[in-house]
Parts: sequence; C-alpha cells; structure tokens
Amino acid sequence: MADNIETLGHEDIYPINKDGKEQTRAFLMKVVEILLEYIDEENDRKSKILDFKMPEELEQILDLDIPQKGLPLGQLLKDCRSTLKWQVKTGHPHYFNQLSSGLDILSLAGEWLTSAANTNMFTYEIAPVFILMENVVLKEMRKFLGFVHGDSILAPGGSLANMYALMGARHKMFPNYKKLGLKALPQLVMYTSIDSHYSAMGAAASCGLGTDNVIQIDVDEIGRMRVDKLEEAVLATKARGQVPFFVNCTCGTTVVGAFDPIIPIAELCQKYGIWLHIDAAWGGGVLLSKKHRRLMEGVERANSVTWNPHKLMGTHLQCSSIHFKQDGILLGCNQMCAEYLFQQDKHYDVSFDTGDKVPQCGRRNDIFKLWLMWRGKGNEGFEQHIDHLFAMSDYLVQRMKEMPEKFHLIQEPEMVNVLFWYIPERLRDQPDTKERNAELGRITAQLKARMMTTGSLMITYQPLRHLPNFFRNIVSNAAVKKEDIDFLLAELDRLGHDL
Amino acid sequence: MADNIETLGHEDIYPINKDGKEQTRAFLMKVVEILLEYIDEENDRKSKILDFKMPEELEQILDLDIPQKGLPLGQLLKDCRSTLKWQVKTGHPHYFNQLSSGLDILSLAGEWLTSAANTNMFTYEIAPVFILMENVVLKEMRKFLGFVHGDSILAPGGSLANMYALMGARHKMFPNYKKLGLKALPQLVMYTSIDSHYSAMGAAASCGLGTDNVIQIDVDEIGRMRVDKLEEAVLATKARGQVPFFVNCTCGTTVVGAFDPIIPIAELCQKYGIWLHIDAAWGGGVLLSKKHRRLMEGVERANSVTWNPHKLMGTHLQCSSIHFKQDGILLGCNQMCAEYLFQQDKHYDVSFDTGDKVPQCGRRNDIFKLWLMWRGKGNEGFEQHIDHLFAMSDYLVQRMKEMPEKFHLIQEPEMVNVLFWYIPERLRDQPDTKERNAELGRITAQLKARMMTTGSLMITYQPLRHLPNFFRNIVSNAAVKKEDIDFLLAELDRLGHDL
Repeated sequence: MADNIETLGHEDIYPINKDGKEQTRAFLMKVVEILLEYIDEENDRKSKILDFKMPEELEQILDLDIPQKGLPLGQLLKDCRSTLKWQVKTGHPHYFNQLSSGLDILSLAGEWLTSAANTNMFTYEIAPVFILMENVVLKEMRKFLGFVHGDSILAPGGSLANMYALMGARHKMFPNYKKLGLKALPQLVMYTSIDSHYSAMGAAASCGLGTDNVIQIDVDEIGRMRVDKLEEAVLATKARGQVPFFVNCTCGTTVVGAFDPIIPIAELCQKYGIWLHIDAAWGGGVLLSKKHRRLMEGVERANSVTWNPHKLMGTHLQCSSIHFKQDGILLGCNQMCAEYLFQQDKHYDVSFDTGDKVPQCGRRNDIFKLWLMWRGKGNEGFEQHIDHLFAMSDYLVQRMKEMPEKFHLIQEPEMVNVLFWYIPERLRDQPDTKERNAELGRITAQLKARMMTTGSLMITYQPLRHLPNFFRNIVSNAAVKKEDIDFLLAELDRLGHDL
Repeated sequence: MADNIETLGHEDIYPINKDGKEQTRAFLMKVVEILLEYIDEENDRKSKILDFKMPEELEQILDLDIPQKGLPLGQLLKDCRSTLKWQVKTGHPHYFNQLSSGLDILSLAGEWLTSAANTNMFTYEIAPVFILMENVVLKEMRKFLGFVHGDSILAPGGSLANMYALMGARHKMFPNYKKLGLKALPQLVMYTSIDSHYSAMGAAASCGLGTDNVIQIDVDEIGRMRVDKLEEAVLATKARGQVPFFVNCTCGTTVVGAFDPIIPIAELCQKYGIWLHIDAAWGGGVLLSKKHRRLMEGVERANSVTWNPHKLMGTHLQCSSIHFKQDGILLGCNQMCAEYLFQQDKHYDVSFDTGDKVPQCGRRNDIFKLWLMWRGKGNEGFEQHIDHLFAMSDYLVQRMKEMPEKFHLIQEPEMVNVLFWYIPERLRDQPDTKERNAELGRITAQLKARMMTTGSLMITYQPLRHLPNFFRNIVSNAAVKKEDIDFLLAELDRLGHDL
C-alpha cells in the first residue's frame, strides 16, 4: 500500500476516504521522515543555516502555484522537501539572529499533538484538558511574578498582549469607555522609554489614543528608562490638563536587553495613581532563575505583565502571555456575552469558558507545547536553561574582550543581547571616533550580507539612538555551546577581515 | 537505543544533547504513533467523540502539575495519551458542534512542517519561502473576491481580522487619528446587523469607538440585514452630527448562516461615502463553488473582506485572512518602522518584509498548511468540498422534512447552518405555540447534556432574538457522509424521545 502512495490524491486518505487508514498513515510517515531529516540537518553544525536567494530568484526556483486540479501526494512530499530546503534553519546553533530561536523537541511534540487535536480554546466544552492546563500553567507563571491571585491569558504575540494590558488598564480606570468610547474620556496619556518595543506606539494607535499621546522617556547610558524624566513628563501632562494613566516599563529591551528600574517606577506610579505595566515579553524568562531574577526585582508591584515563553524559554512560536494582578479585568474589559457560544445554562461550571476574556473569538491552543515542555524540564530544567543562555552570552563577551582589536563591545550587557562592531583589518589602528564608527556601521550591513550569502551564520543589526548600525547577538537557543561561540567569532573574522 | 527511551530525559535529546539523533528520533516516532492511533480512532464512527467529565472531576483524574524536576520521556508519552483520551475529537464525523471541525490530513501535515520550521512571518530574511507562499495564496483569494489589486494578510482569528478592517477604514478615512487619537475626530459610527458576530462590538470597544456607537440594524425574517433600516440609521446618525463611517455586512451569520444583501448595501455605502466591510469569516468559502458563490454576489464592491479558511474550507485553526481592495492601507495604518527589524539597508527588496503591516510584531506562520492543502486539492477539490458540505446539509434538511413530528425545522437554510428543535414523544401532538416552543427550548439544553454525557454526538444550541434555545447543526467536516446524517437523526431520537 505504502508503495504507491505517491500517486494517490487527497481523496484517497482521511477524511474523505473513510477506509484510508493505511494510506493516511503511509503519507504522514513520509512527511515525518522528511521532518526528521530536517531536524538532523539543523542540529548538524556542518550544515548551512540557509541558502539565500533574492525574492525574484526564489520565485523562479519554486513552484508555488495553486493548481486547478489537486496534485498527487508525491508532489506534496516534494513540496515539503523543497520548502524546507529554501527555508532558514531557525534552530541551527549558529542562528543568533532573533530573540526567538532554537527547536525544542518537547515543544515540537506538543505542537504536533496540538494540531492533531485541532480545537479552539474558547470553551471547556470543546477543549476541556487544554483549558485546565492553561489554568495550571498560568497560575505557575503568576507564582513567579509574585501575583497571589490575579488572572492571565495566552495572547497571539507580545504586541497584542501589551495591547490587552492597555485595554485592561483603560477598562479598570475608566469603565464607561467601553460603552461611550474615548471621546467621552479626558485625553489619556501613556509613557514608555525611547528604547521600548514599538508595540507600545502600535497599541496607542490601534486603541485610538494616538501616538502623540505616548510620551517617550529618555534612557540612561545603558538603556534603562530615566525615572526623573518620567516624573517630569507626568507633571507636564497634568499641567496640560490631560490624564497620565499607563506606564510601560520594559524588562529586556529589544535591542539592548536593558531592564527599566521597576521599584522607583512603581513608587512613581503609586504616587500619581498610574497603571504600571511591565513588558517582559523578552526578559520574563529570567524569573525562572534564582541567579538572574534580581533583574526583575519588584515585579510583583506591577498591575500587568507581558511574558513570552516563545522567547527566552524556547517554546515554539507563538506562546505569549498577559497577566493581571487583579482578577476579573479581562472579562470585564472584553466580555460581549455571545449567547451562541457562552450559554449560561450549560451543564458544567461555565467559568471554565475563557473565550469571552479576549477580543478574539477563536483562540489557538498555545498551551499544550508549553505545558509538555515544563513537565519535561521541570522548574529546575528551565532554570538551567536560562542560566546556560546567560553563561554562553558571558563567554562571548569574555572572548570579545580578549580580542579588542577585532571586536568593539558597545556596552556591558545586562542580559543575553551582546552589542558589538566587528573591526576589519584596515580599521584596526584607527581611534574610536565618530567617523570610524560610521564606517563600522556601513561594514556591519555588508558583513551581514556576506553572512546571508554564505549561509554559515546569522546575527542581526540595527542603528540605535546616536549609534550607527551595530550587531546584536542573541543566545536564546539551548543548542548553543562554547564551540558555537568560538565558531561565531572565527566566522565573523573569516567573512569580514577584508571589508 | 529506542528500547530505553522511556527513562531518558529532555537533556538526552536534541537540542541539548547534540549527539541525540537516535534518541530524538525514537521519542518523536513514539509521539507520532500515539497521534496516528488518535487519528484512526477519530475516523472510526464507532468511537466516542468525548468522555465527558465535569471540570472538578477532570482535575482529579489528570496529573497536570508542573514538577520541580523534569519528568522522563516515558511520562511525557503517557501525558500525550492521557491528554488525547480526555480531549474532544473535533474531527469525528459526528461532531457537528462548531463552524470549525474536521481534521484535514494535508493541513495537518502542513502544521507539522510549520512547527519543525518554527519561524516568524515578519521578514523575508527569516521566512523567505513562507512569505512568497503567502503572497501567492492571498492573491488567489483576492481573485475569488474580484479584487484586481489590493492587499491582504493572515490575522490571528476572524475577530481580529474584523478589527484590522475597522482600523484600516479609520486610517484611510481619517489618517490623522493615528497621531492625534480619536478625540481629535468627530464621533465615528458603525453599523452591523443584530445577528452579526460579536466581534463587531468587540472591535468598537477595543479601538475606542464605544459600543454605543455601533448601531445594530434589524434583520428580515431569514436573518439578513434590512437595508431600509440601515438607511434610517445612517440618516439619524447624520442628524445627530456624527459620522457614519463603517458598515459591517455579514456573509454567513454565526447562528443562522444568513447572507446580508451585498449589492443594495454597497449602493447605500457609495451614496453616503461609508466604508463597506464584509465579514465573510464563515461564508467566504462559498466563493470557491460556482454553484454557491451567488450568495456573495457583489463582493467585489467591498472595501475589505474577512475570510477564514479555518472554517468552511477545513484548514487547521487558525487561519484567518483580511483583504483590502486598495493597496497600501495595511502598511499606512500599522507601520511603526522599527529599525531593529525592518532595516531599510538590507541587501534584498524589503517590500517583502510584511511584519509592519499588522499591529502584531511576531506573526505565526498560518500559511503553509493552507498552501499545501490547496496544492493537494486544487481549486476543483475545494469546489467539490464546498458543494459536498452543502449537499450533506441539504440531505439533513430533506430527511427532517420527512419526519415533521420529530423535527421542527426553524427556517430554510441559506448555508450549512440547520436550525431545528427536536420534539420528544410527549410533545408530538402539541400545536406550534409559544408555550410549546419554550418547552422545546428547555428540552434542547437537556438533550445537549445527554449528548455530552453519552459522547456520541455534538450539536450546539443557543437562543436567538425571540426564539428560545434551538439546535444549530453545522456540516463543515469533509468526513461527513449520508450515513452520518442518518446517524445524527437516529441518535437524537434515541437520546431525546423520552424527554
């Protein structure tokens, strides 16, 4: 049966062919074989991360067309192979490009089961086990936040989690906006650091606050929000007759990995009656480590916290969470009481139907992978994971310091973001001037292009404030070992020395 | 090696153990075996859909705790089995409960590959193949909408897709709101039918419009928006000095499956300069059928359309899309130009970086499963799929009409939503009065409880307008055959005749 699977079509397998057991199994096993080969290749340090093609070239190489008649299963298997061949291996140990990287196998197994179960998280009726799991895991996360009661939900990404926080704050402080709209309220103003994630601005635009009403607060020399400047801004808002209502305190800024000082910000929020939101989408994972959780000292004083397990914790994309210290806000804010879904006369306790807590209706199951991973690693395994990432990042910094002629470390990192310029041979005797650094900025983009075309290494870059382009290296993949850091340094030198 | 896999831990497989190839493979193969068994059981009509337990019972049965030390892989495999044992089989041919149902095997294979590739859809840099696929598939969808140019994106669910439409309309009509906020605009008013999805209200609350500024328009006897009432409401808004700006026209209402009349609504929107959004989250799939696409005649006149492949088309949860007739709106509305991600000096054409088109930052890969499915089914296969769902639904209606003593059909369906009461023996000689129907409403909830505890059948129910609870049957699973419809009817009678 499995011999001729390649010539069969979609109508020969489940669900259309109810007797398609063997054919379905044979097809899926062939898919799994392709995936296992991909995973092996990804974990093989000699393999390339990507085989880069320009968009117009790749469009020529790939056959992406939607056909009139369905293609045989054999063609679909070829499609799977070809997709993976041209895809970037985000779990490769030499991929240091994004905050999310790595391929955790427990999380992967979780995603495979999740898609076989294919349910929607809005009611206990159709997702009983997953709803209970979500309760357990989110409660565990709140424990790490020091939230004794509170309420949480998984959201589709950290940006929307931050938006849900803004909406929750608005609801708690001005419950009539839901009915009357923003025009009935005084002008609300929010505060976030200039280094914070762009989703703070995005949420303000989406929710109708207006980006002019997001005050961007200066940061200190290592990228943390300046509390004195925050207080000045709050007073200025009040002087204008507007209402300071929301401070977005970032724990783990996107580029620098800086932690805004929670405790003085919390004091200030308390003094002026402002909602304190912590965007720990990136940094939240440090809470799992006894050694590193000091970076978030005072987190229990927040009103809400965003924390993305799909970043530092290595869970699959996507897995984002939003937590509130006070219970009931999510439901109060978002509840629309659709009778077709949240019937109140069901025969079970309908407080387990969580769908009305979010502005989404359908909610993807993002919990199983995280739960399975946590079962397999335990709190200790996650702690070791976080400590390992920091240790590898420290090792990189130490190695760079041993080669100051080749690597210009931009600042001492607080987290696993390591910011640096690579210095090619011709610039090694130059002093640290604005002109040299501008040239290093140009080289950064050129070196990245060489990485992409070679396919051996990926590290992202960006400008920041007064600084021209520089590299931001991220270690967030459990696969990374000292030998990978050594490779990173050597490969930068090999690719860039003559630039 | 595979023999002792059960006693190994997460540190013995990839990515921590770089030599863990055989162990990783053995673990994942055991997971796949569990999933294949589940899929076989789901496709076995003799199996139960669910083994219902009350939340407090299920909490006792399951061990969901997060451990201090990681559990061995053998325990995780047990956890997978146990999760599936207590989960609802949403792909079972006798699960008629939700708009999304079924387990398409191509889509499943797509999800498995998606999770192995584990990337983020924000840049071509890290998702080259998937970005190109998204372009191809969304262009194909726009072809079915009759949008010659335009722009589209996949969104995390239909509710947020509708919100993105509202935000796009607001941006197009009042570009300065992004900077200044809603307080700088006149009061905007939107319109939606009383039968439309609650996400219209939700979007108005979230975006700061206020639910009081959503005018709910009456429907005709079969659930379609009344255009005369819509015009009255628009005139009343103008008389109040407010601005009518957005009509939400539903194609496929959630309960009834009704199609608001697009053409007269489009005429009215044109007359008054109002944005026409079509919420075809549920109904959009009819466009794929030459026979049924007449239900959406005039769709090309919309400014924006929501269409969820995860509903009628049977793609995995989640897969939702939003389409705009005019290009550039998504980017104009949501762009925040984060320099760390959307560097303009990359070495490729950065118009392929789509992340700045949405208020999310990270964007899950929801395209591959849909693309793979479409390759395997082709346009013809999707057309047959849609026609089959309608045919099975028609068959259900015909059979019910043959047994009017047992089944009270509430109205002739436009789509695959079949609305009915089951009539138990003691009420079969009663006239069709308000009192009898109130009693049938009570019986509906009781009969649903019996279905849940028996586990043989699932159909949802709800009240609507003046009607007490009634069943809403949905055929959206390609697995459903006439024998399953016959079973449905017989099982309702077996479970309910003595109620």
